Amino acid sequence: MSWMQDAGLKTWVDQMGNLHGRTDTVNATAETLLIGSHLDTVVDAGKYDGSLGIICAISALKVLRIKGKLEKLYRPVEVIAFSDEEGVRFQSTFLGSAAIAGILPPTALQISDKSGITVQDVLRENSFEATDESLVWVKYNPKSVWGYVEVHIEQGPVLETLGYPLGVVKGIAGQTRLKVEVSGAQGHAGTVPMLMRQDSMAAAAELIVTLETLCKYPDKLFAYDEQCGFFEKESLAGLVCTVGEISCWPSASNVIPGQVNFTVDIRAIDDEARKSVVSEFSNQVYRKCEQRMVNCTIKHKHDAEAAHCDSELTLQLKHATSSALRKMPSDIHGDVPILMSGAGHDAMAMSHLTKQVGMLFVRCRGGISHSPEESVLDDDVWAAGLALLQFLDQHVNQ
Amino acid sequence: MSWMQDAGLKTWVDQMGNLHGRTDTVNATAETLLIGSHLDTVVDAGKYDGSLGIICAISALKVLRIKGKLEKLYRPVEVIAFSDEEGVRFQSTFLGSAAIAGILPPTALQISDKSGITVQDVLRENSFEATDESLVWVKYNPKSVWGYVEVHIEQGPVLETLGYPLGVVKGIAGQTRLKVEVSGAQGHAGTVPMLMRQDSMAAAAELIVTLETLCKYPDKLFAYDEQCGFFEKESLAGLVCTVGEISCWPSASNVIPGQVNFTVDIRAIDDEARKSVVSEFSNQVYRKCEQRMVNCTIKHKHDAEAAHCDSELTLQLKHATSSALRKMPSDIHGDVPILMSGAGHDAMAMSHLTKQVGMLFVRCRGGISHSPEESVLDDDVWAAGLALLQFLDQHVNQ
Repeated sequence: MSWMQDAGLKTWVDQMGNLHGRTDTVNATAETLLIGSHLDTVVDAGKYDGSLGIICAISALKVLRIKGKLEKLYRPVEVIAFSDEEGVRFQSTFLGSAAIAGILPPTALQISDKSGITVQDVLRENSFEATDESLVWVKYNPKSVWGYVEVHIEQGPVLETLGYPLGVVKGIAGQTRLKVEVSGAQGHAGTVPMLMRQDSMAAAAELIVTLETLCKYPDKLFAYDEQCGFFEKESLAGLVCTVGEISCWPSASNVIPGQVNFTVDIRAIDDEARKSVVSEFSNQVYRKCEQRMVNCTIKHKHDAEAAHCDSELTLQLKHATSSALRKMPSDIHGDVPILMSGAGHDAMAMSHLTKQVGMLFVRCRGGISHSPEESVLDDDVWAAGLALLQFLDQHVNQ
Repeated sequence: MSWMQDAGLKTWVDQMGNLHGRTDTVNATAETLLIGSHLDTVVDAGKYDGSLGIICAISALKVLRIKGKLEKLYRPVEVIAFSDEEGVRFQSTFLGSAAIAGILPPTALQISDKSGITVQDVLRENSFEATDESLVWVKYNPKSVWGYVEVHIEQGPVLETLGYPLGVVKGIAGQTRLKVEVSGAQGHAGTVPMLMRQDSMAAAAELIVTLETLCKYPDKLFAYDEQCGFFEKESLAGLVCTVGEISCWPSASNVIPGQVNFTVDIRAIDDEARKSVVSEFSNQVYRKCEQRMVNCTIKHKHDAEAAHCDSELTLQLKHATSSALRKMPSDIHGDVPILMSGAGHDAMAMSHLTKQVGMLFVRCRGGISHSPEESVLDDDVWAAGLALLQFLDQHVNQ
């Protein structure tokens, strides 16, 4: 908050705990450009996840202030540090940004943590009065918003592989989360012949390999659709599928598991493509389980549509990035990469407030999300701040 | 103990807690026929696992007593109810039978349970003085033993599938236990493209499928050896492979696991065949892990050679079984099945005391080891007792 004030911003905290810093410009009632990122992190996430975007925004505005340009902005610019994006405590993501975007249901205030304390309780403890009514006050009027921009570390390996410090995001992938439950016949590891087994572990392993193949080489599996011209390669290009959790029962080295459960996370920028992959995977699960005479159920745990960044805003961010990189001492060749984001971001919630959403990704080492080893080169931090400054410059009366 | 006495047996408990019941025959110093099984069970194992073999032996001897044949046995017969076969408390199997067979190392007395109480402590609490010296007294002299016979439920589905109440065991499979550790690159489920992943879960799944294929269709993989006449089909027929435990890290649905560990249990009646499968599996693991650029290590946790039943004794048990089944009211066709045992039994330990080892399997429903639902038909219990009686009859002076 003091850094925001130092950058010449008027600050306040809303009833959901989001911290705001806003310029006091001439056209105070014009549509506002919002720049946001989150203040919270998961345990051991390292220092860049979330906070980098807030620091970049404050820094760029401070440069504008030093240069005497802050008063020349022809629209208000507001930095928002969202209170809870990760959902670590309440297992519900985007608590801060969803409230501002007006898509947080009042029931979310009653979600409780592991010890039974609700979101509302915690806010009250910290002197925030979060009620159904205050949520109405936290929500922004879409007509008051020009657009939303977010700077975030990539948390993936693409920019590192391309050797490029920054990238512009074209959209945030939609996501489907499934839980697959495989029930076979528990048995002694020594007494049941291979051909008489209904082995839920072997079945689950085959399904996991099937999922990987489906997402690694979707062209092969969607050849039929491709012939009909339905799926373009582009729509399947960013498809990613992950099995992150697995458990088996009874879990003894000398017992054929009777039950194996695993999670599935499927993401794609194209919602139709994602749904087709989910459907094709489900079909293959049921077919393979029937062949193996094991019982499989697929539970849908979560479905989120993709959020598409605004093409005009994306172009502006791309130009700003090019121009920023030309000012950097290091020699960077080639076009600014246009990426999709596989990870969810506050921009996803904010896209419900304004269609004009843009994101800038910063290269990080290792490409491991939520890792303390995740680090960003100082030069890349500079480049991100500079790109944001170049972008803001377009909103200044020259 | 009172049932043993009721059958005319002299009883005692040795310093390892094994219960013995022995005939007082004319030729008291002749080589003894031992008939054993275990008294302990795992939690919820049902009532047949172990105890059925003891009850059958006592019952058969009681019939001999009633018929006045007990005194006509031309060698002593001794029923042994082993104290600890399962190893539930101390994670060490065959504590009772290994002591009698003389293969229990004195260090076994110092093995402790989860609360730090040793085998020796527990025996002492129950007034057994188990010391290095007492182990020498518990051990039997091989020269005093004619042979060892064990009746046990199959704990597998083979007899049920064949529709046959009893089967004769030709040997107990050797076993190799491995722990496979797959280390990949942890990453965000949304941000790492499929072709850039070092996904330890997908790798582990492929290895589990590989193991299953190898053991389900060993002919395909050992075609080369078969041409050279090395592996006969027979030696690979009873091959079974199981992955009973799996764990992953960090275990979150939206994180590509950085580490997946799983157990492997490989059993075969032919030790050379088993070792070849272990070696072939290991080669495939390293090759596939290299292709996927993940790090795999294979740890050998346990290796046990197969125990082969004596062919002459097996034939005697087969004749006794045939003859018993002819006396049963139900109409059973076909030869008595000759099975291998994939599960370990006290007979495995006892085969170190005497080469003359034989086992009789009793059909059970479900074929699930250690399940409370496991049950045995009353008729099959009768058949098992009758078969043992027929077998004992061969040791009676007619």
